[in-house]
Amino acid sequence: MVVMTLLFSDEDVAALDAPSTVAAMRDALLAAYEGRLVAPPRASAALGGGRMVLTAGHLTGEWYGFRSYDTFGLPESGQLVVLHDARSGAVRAIAVGEELGSRRTGGLGGVAVDALARPDAATLGVVGSGRQAWTQVWAAAAVRPLREVTVHSRSAGRREAFAARVRAELGVPAHAVGSAVEAVRDRDVVVLATTSTTPVLAAADLAPGTHVNTVGFKQTDRHEFGPDLLDAADVLVTDSPAQAAAYVPPMLAAVEPYAGRLRDLGAVLAGAVPGRTGADQISVFCSTGLAGTEVFLLDRLARVGAVRAAAG
Amino acid sequence: MVVMTLLFSDEDVAALDAPSTVAAMRDALLAAYEGRLVAPPRASAALGGGRMVLTAGHLTGEWYGFRSYDTFGLPESGQLVVLHDARSGAVRAIAVGEELGSRRTGGLGGVAVDALARPDAATLGVVGSGRQAWTQVWAAAAVRPLREVTVHSRSAGRREAFAARVRAELGVPAHAVGSAVEAVRDRDVVVLATTSTTPVLAAADLAPGTHVNTVGFKQTDRHEFGPDLLDAADVLVTDSPAQAAAYVPPMLAAVEPYAGRLRDLGAVLAGAVPGRTGADQISVFCSTGLAGTEVFLLDRLARVGAVRAAAG
Repeated sequence: MVVMTLLFSDEDVAALDAPSTVAAMRDALLAAYEGRLVAPPRASAALGGGRMVLTAGHLTGEWYGFRSYDTFGLPESGQLVVLHDARSGAVRAIAVGEELGSRRTGGLGGVAVDALARPDAATLGVVGSGRQAWTQVWAAAAVRPLREVTVHSRSAGRREAFAARVRAELGVPAHAVGSAVEAVRDRDVVVLATTSTTPVLAAADLAPGTHVNTVGFKQTDRHEFGPDLLDAADVLVTDSPAQAAAYVPPMLAAVEPYAGRLRDLGAVLAGAVPGRTGADQISVFCSTGLAGTEVFLLDRLARVGAVRAAAG
Repeated sequence: MVVMTLLFSDEDVAALDAPSTVAAMRDALLAAYEGRLVAPPRASAALGGGRMVLTAGHLTGEWYGFRSYDTFGLPESGQLVVLHDARSGAVRAIAVGEELGSRRTGGLGGVAVDALARPDAATLGVVGSGRQAWTQVWAAAAVRPLREVTVHSRSAGRREAFAARVRAELGVPAHAVGSAVEAVRDRDVVVLATTSTTPVLAAADLAPGTHVNTVGFKQTDRHEFGPDLLDAADVLVTDSPAQAAAYVPPMLAAVEPYAGRLRDLGAVLAGAVPGRTGADQISVFCSTGLAGTEVFLLDRLARVGAVRAAAG
């Protein structure tokens, strides 16, 4: 029997549009909340100088698979996402590269903005100009009609290029600014997607009613925002409370006094717990990267790929 | 930068010839013995109804990677072997299917036959007629000029087909027989590659001077051979004493009174411990499947593939 395994590069993954990606991540969060998506703690093997890490997932009756990555810190260190059919066990698809993982994270961020930002949110400020910052804005633009984007990052060249990309690819007016405070001032939605280990803003910099997506470091020992942001948050949400607590050291939002207030985004989507209940509330989404969601997204991509192959 | 990832199917892996495979596994065993091949215990993630398992390896300065497989027991359950370049981290190659793993195991068996069977060994008896049985005979034929092969398995149709394949592909006279005892009687080399959980032969069935490769179950709670074979063995060897002991429950050969006599095949190859020292000795190789060896073999295959791609 001939088994067709689809192999996707970063270029192929770029065919995933933002509305489909956000829709897939919404489905994944609901599946996890309902117990259909099994996402165990990560497993790893020590290889001397680095570790090989596996995060696995299983959508009951549909598929199982994993993402692999390593901690050697090499320049082209490739991630893999692998999708098995749950009926036959066959390997249906493999994605190699960084793009699927960052679009997955972007999609989760888009779901959070859609669920938690004010319905009339139209301005977005982003701190960071890397791959993760991009997919957050890309996904946010799919759930709110953005009117203006401001961006700050340490490199003037990179933040200018980011603003130009927002204008060109998303058709949204955008400009680079010289400080994080300027980027986030009076914004409806704020994205933190830096590699900083110390806070890049203060909660006092934010206007009432702002929704914040945090994508960078957020553990107790290093974090791109401080406890003041969590103190200011009326609504505190993550995509995986279990994973947030399992980090070593744990995420700031997963220890007291915040852990008791930390809500599951899947539960918010299901209507089991409330999200935002007032226009002046500050809402904060702490992105964890729910395990299994990369495979979930690869499944969607493989369905499209299979349809195209059949049509071609 | 464009990263070329080579994707190998079972059909592509079939291009690996037995002498190259045995040579690669000899190099891998020596690298592990010398500490250059890092092969940690397997890691796994529970997925509800099955586990996703990862065995990783790292050849210092050359490559790192892993094999993944699952325990759902599905009909087409695909294994993956992934090779990363140790300098850049890039994914150089991926193999999907069963063939690389079984050729790897065959190659290790070939090294054992070469190191431990009598130099004049020319007859081989095999119990089992599956994929693992085949690659053992395939590799053994590369290290000894076989004169005759006898095969027994429960299915008359399958053992006849196996004998026909030995004649056709290896050019060695072969015939199927009605019992395991007939298959192994007066043979220079014996291969056990069954799925049996109880002994398929007695040590008394073997002639003095026989070398035995055991590929099937060999743990304390289920085993295709009994302790009598280990009692009869003058030379007892495995490809990974550490993995043999780490099995739960452990391998028969890794518990007392056998553990103290169990030798590392890599150490035998390096000349650090003796192998066979007499023509009448019984030698037994307990195949464990040294971690990292699938990646080792994929590295060899990828080098050939890269050369072909460059030439084509």
